[in-house]
Amino acid sequence: MNLDPGMTRERLETGCWPDGAAYVDGRYVPISDARISVLDFGFTRSDACYDVVHVHDGAFFRLDDHLRRFRASLEGVRMSIRHDDDALTAILAECVRLSGHRDSYVAMVCTRGVPPARVRGAISGISNTFIAYALPWIDVLSAEIQRRGAHVMIASTPRIPSESVDPTIKNYNRGDMVRAMFEAEDAGADTAILLDLAGHVTEGPGFNVFAVSGSSVRTPASGSLEGVTRLAALELCVELGLDAATADLTPEDLHDADEVFLTSTAGGIIAVTRIDNRILSNDSPGPVTRRVTDLYWKWHRDGRHATPVAY
Amino acid sequence: MNLDPGMTRERLETGCWPDGAAYVDGRYVPISDARISVLDFGFTRSDACYDVVHVHDGAFFRLDDHLRRFRASLEGVRMSIRHDDDALTAILAECVRLSGHRDSYVAMVCTRGVPPARVRGAISGISNTFIAYALPWIDVLSAEIQRRGAHVMIASTPRIPSESVDPTIKNYNRGDMVRAMFEAEDAGADTAILLDLAGHVTEGPGFNVFAVSGSSVRTPASGSLEGVTRLAALELCVELGLDAATADLTPEDLHDADEVFLTSTAGGIIAVTRIDNRILSNDSPGPVTRRVTDLYWKWHRDGRHATPVAY
Repeated sequence: MNLDPGMTRERLETGCWPDGAAYVDGRYVPISDARISVLDFGFTRSDACYDVVHVHDGAFFRLDDHLRRFRASLEGVRMSIRHDDDALTAILAECVRLSGHRDSYVAMVCTRGVPPARVRGAISGISNTFIAYALPWIDVLSAEIQRRGAHVMIASTPRIPSESVDPTIKNYNRGDMVRAMFEAEDAGADTAILLDLAGHVTEGPGFNVFAVSGSSVRTPASGSLEGVTRLAALELCVELGLDAATADLTPEDLHDADEVFLTSTAGGIIAVTRIDNRILSNDSPGPVTRRVTDLYWKWHRDGRHATPVAY
Repeated sequence: MNLDPGMTRERLETGCWPDGAAYVDGRYVPISDARISVLDFGFTRSDACYDVVHVHDGAFFRLDDHLRRFRASLEGVRMSIRHDDDALTAILAECVRLSGHRDSYVAMVCTRGVPPARVRGAISGISNTFIAYALPWIDVLSAEIQRRGAHVMIASTPRIPSESVDPTIKNYNRGDMVRAMFEAEDAGADTAILLDLAGHVTEGPGFNVFAVSGSSVRTPASGSLEGVTRLAALELCVELGLDAATADLTPEDLHDADEVFLTSTAGGIIAVTRIDNRILSNDSPGPVTRRVTDLYWKWHRDGRHATPVAY
């Protein structure tokens, strides 16, 4: 175990692991060696929480927001890690440095851990497992789809209700999303949006949803992850003089919207041009979505919310 | 990769890995080396299915039922493995032989696999990962709790609805169960039973639920795994001349029952003596539960449904 978790004992070369670098069991390893036990409750009970922050042009974006949410998730599932925010930042930055990418997908994960053998007992005593890793940038939808706009299906599979699994705690219980994505694949759509059991829009696999009507921009108030890019989008809309707020949204609100866009750490702001074969904004990214997207990347260029990585 | 997956290339000694033996990536390894990538969708999306069969006194119990259910789960989640039932049986038996235990918890698991780098695309093309392992016998509740009878809490956390994640496909989306188990721990109970959103009894973490009233024995008709031990219990009740059937059950049905018992591959038939601080059958395992339990283990001694392991 390194005393300073942010540094490898022998300083490995920047970019030595271009497929990805990870921090597991207190050591830095190439991503191919980042593995968890098949007995870890993080796997067998989906008893884990995590967060993902992106690095753009060599700097974390809104790292503080991601760290704050990760801490809230840990508390929500009664897990703990031994690293404070500075140590955590150092670990994430070291993973980025070792993978060497200036645009990166960076994850911090905590699992319940491996239970004692022979009997299932109390969960609370199990030692939690912390993992971090940095990968080359991931797009939740391909660059080509982002250019033309996403084709989205509203799935018949309902989102797991908040009463069963809290969606504001970033977690891996995604059986509902997998089912919805198969629905989308079968229908020839790029991805899926899930409704709650009351028929309100929640989110999709890896993204929040926004509907634009005139100068009004709405995203679901509940039933979804409180995405950091969702928060950024709300702030961007305010800066653009739009009326941005949370609200309950129905499928009809999406069908009838002028524009719909998705927000994700893995891609930013993504236009939707078709929903359930309804064509939106002349089948190309609409003007409000383009303004929000442009300002989102301008904030990156300005260095707003940036935490530079030392490569 | 071994051509005959049931045999290690060099024949390792029986019982060489007493903590557990696993089959991963076509090789037999000690359980401590049985790991999956942190990038596998089996972890990051809980996109996996599995089954667990037990070995008692050197023989699998109802292996055919478990294999059949595992195949159905695989089909349900659109995964495939390259092993037929004979090869699968040989792998499981070899894991048991290498761990060396005559009483064992034996798992077969399939995950979606590791997605391609850099972009999230179609799920259907990803190569699935198959893992098997054998561990020393696991009790879902300790032997001591089984002797005195389990103290169970009906949790306020509702079971993930079948419409979101199909509970008849054995899966690891258990965020609801983890939450319910914390409720139970906080209340001083041994484990939890979850209700569906309509308020009907479903199941608990690792077990099905039965209510006994006179000669009537009932277990939930839907909303839960169709447990192999649940099936055995229904058959056992018939053989004992009891009126056994599936039905919707409410919390009141459990509170007012003469007896309640749980069924699990990890433990068999387990009496419940307290529910929500209501005391059942004089705070000790009741007569029907004891008759069902005795006959369950007699079936094992008789060699019914037994597939012997060659150690």
